[in-house]
Amino acid sequence: MPVPRHDADATVAAVGEHALIERIRARAGVLPDWVTLGIGDDAAVLEPERGTLDVVTSDSLVERVHFRRDWTLPAAIGHKALAVSLSDLAAMGAAPRASLLSLALPPDVPLAEFDGLLDGFLALAAKTGAPLVGGNITRSPGPLVVDVTAIGSVRRRRLLTRGGGRPGDELFLTGQIGGAAAGLALLEASRDRATFDALDTDCVHRYEWPDPRLRCGQIVARSRAASACMDLSDGLADAAGQLARASQTGVVVDAAAVPIHPGAAAWASRTGGEALPLALAGGEDYELLFAVSPRQRRKFLAAARAYRGLMLTSVGRLRREPGHWLSRMGQLEPLGSGFVHF
Amino acid sequence: MPVPRHDADATVAAVGEHALIERIRARAGVLPDWVTLGIGDDAAVLEPERGTLDVVTSDSLVERVHFRRDWTLPAAIGHKALAVSLSDLAAMGAAPRASLLSLALPPDVPLAEFDGLLDGFLALAAKTGAPLVGGNITRSPGPLVVDVTAIGSVRRRRLLTRGGGRPGDELFLTGQIGGAAAGLALLEASRDRATFDALDTDCVHRYEWPDPRLRCGQIVARSRAASACMDLSDGLADAAGQLARASQTGVVVDAAAVPIHPGAAAWASRTGGEALPLALAGGEDYELLFAVSPRQRRKFLAAARAYRGLMLTSVGRLRREPGHWLSRMGQLEPLGSGFVHF
Repeated sequence: MPVPRHDADATVAAVGEHALIERIRARAGVLPDWVTLGIGDDAAVLEPERGTLDVVTSDSLVERVHFRRDWTLPAAIGHKALAVSLSDLAAMGAAPRASLLSLALPPDVPLAEFDGLLDGFLALAAKTGAPLVGGNITRSPGPLVVDVTAIGSVRRRRLLTRGGGRPGDELFLTGQIGGAAAGLALLEASRDRATFDALDTDCVHRYEWPDPRLRCGQIVARSRAASACMDLSDGLADAAGQLARASQTGVVVDAAAVPIHPGAAAWASRTGGEALPLALAGGEDYELLFAVSPRQRRKFLAAARAYRGLMLTSVGRLRREPGHWLSRMGQLEPLGSGFVHF
Repeated sequence: MPVPRHDADATVAAVGEHALIERIRARAGVLPDWVTLGIGDDAAVLEPERGTLDVVTSDSLVERVHFRRDWTLPAAIGHKALAVSLSDLAAMGAAPRASLLSLALPPDVPLAEFDGLLDGFLALAAKTGAPLVGGNITRSPGPLVVDVTAIGSVRRRRLLTRGGGRPGDELFLTGQIGGAAAGLALLEASRDRATFDALDTDCVHRYEWPDPRLRCGQIVARSRAASACMDLSDGLADAAGQLARASQTGVVVDAAAVPIHPGAAAWASRTGGEALPLALAGGEDYELLFAVSPRQRRKFLAAARAYRGLMLTSVGRLRREPGHWLSRMGQLEPLGSGFVHF
């Protein structure tokens, strides 16, 4: 079926549901051979991979809660909507296989904005091997809502969960944190991006274009050197607390060890605040937190070294004594609970 | 972790995201053995069924587009949100295995309403073997949005698609149609349900509590007697047209044969209108439309007979000549395109 042409100034309501779906299908590209049926039937059909488990997760971004259409490029919204679900797959050690995109669209969204969102989604889908195979489009009388389901696979013995940690396990964190929270704070303070320096721009980039740690998750999963893993969607304090809770242990995070993004430090010093809360409670960094037993430490670091270009920092430890603590200058204080969505 | 107690008058915002998730987990019930990990990790993990394909679909219900919170019981909203996705699985001949629930909640939704929605969802999930294994909760600054992903499986040779129809295939429809559209029209005309007679009440029930034709889809798929199938989410005209388009055939629907729900006929005669448009263009009946070749007709009817209690009606035929037509009193007129979401 030929794709109807429309002016980019047209709204999604003028184009209509069927033509929007055709437009998505035309752009979805060549599907890998494990996709038996992609967009266009009642449901998508995937060939399972022999000897693996299916891993599935849903996440949504809501306008005025998770993004602002007047601040952010449509492509970044599409990218991030997929990235946050892929980050969940990364935390299980899974490899992506497919994605579903469910859109609730205000009728006045310009077609160009719809296309931009789709471009951002599809570019990340292509790069990560998560082809768009289905979904849904409906009207929204309120905000734009982007709901994404990501489907992946992992070999049973490689599966990483939150609940496998043991007392004595060391906590390792990928990358640097606080940057995304600083990026959001920067955008809230000024939308004139021309005034941002290189560090500011990097923070905003981390906030808008998160890079899910898929390869790192898979490499560590393959090494079987980590006992537990979770991603940092709601900040380090939340992730450390949840991992400890699922593992039925206590946890101590070492304040001095937390790898704070230099842009977060710069933002904090400019505003007379502290950078640590941005790193602990600021969400959306989408780094991975691993628990590693002392016996597996060497193997873990060797595996992680094979994945160049991503720092790993020891930030704390699980322990038998209950409670979630922050160790700062020799004192223990409550760790707090990170970003809460209500 | 103990489930915190809250007053049913509390709002979801007062309860908070983590407590809502715990509340869902506590109610999700015992998971079947193919669910390796349910609610509570970064993603859900399922054991694939040997020799089957994975079938996945997403659908969403948006407040003030698909339902009104002041008209409809929360349990019906939860039920229907899952039912529409399960109907897509039914149309592929698939058996459900799991479901994901993604909620965007206005902060002032009372906890009792949240619980009700969940009850409706979980009752259907339990009845159909689609246990809730994951999802997401976020705040909505606008309407309540319920997005559901359903996951099923089907043996490769049993998979039903829209695209397998051939010229000469007969079209068979389950059940009677137009009832859901009449139910919506009734609610729009009067919300005083005490004034509804038994037929009216049945129409409203069909609109609010659709029953996905899972068993029928699976029995027909097992018989391998149908060449194509699709569900009627957007009405018979839309389904017949889409099935013909995917099968690269034309189609003629026989107006006199369309099994119109008696409640739709009664509503039409009361309002001085015609019942046929309700049946053709009114969506949400969630019946199944099958294409069956003449050689398979007997086998199809024998398989369908094994599934008692659901009528099957021959409503038209695929044909080589292009176009989507309605045959009425010996004349062909354009079939039209059913319910459009914008």
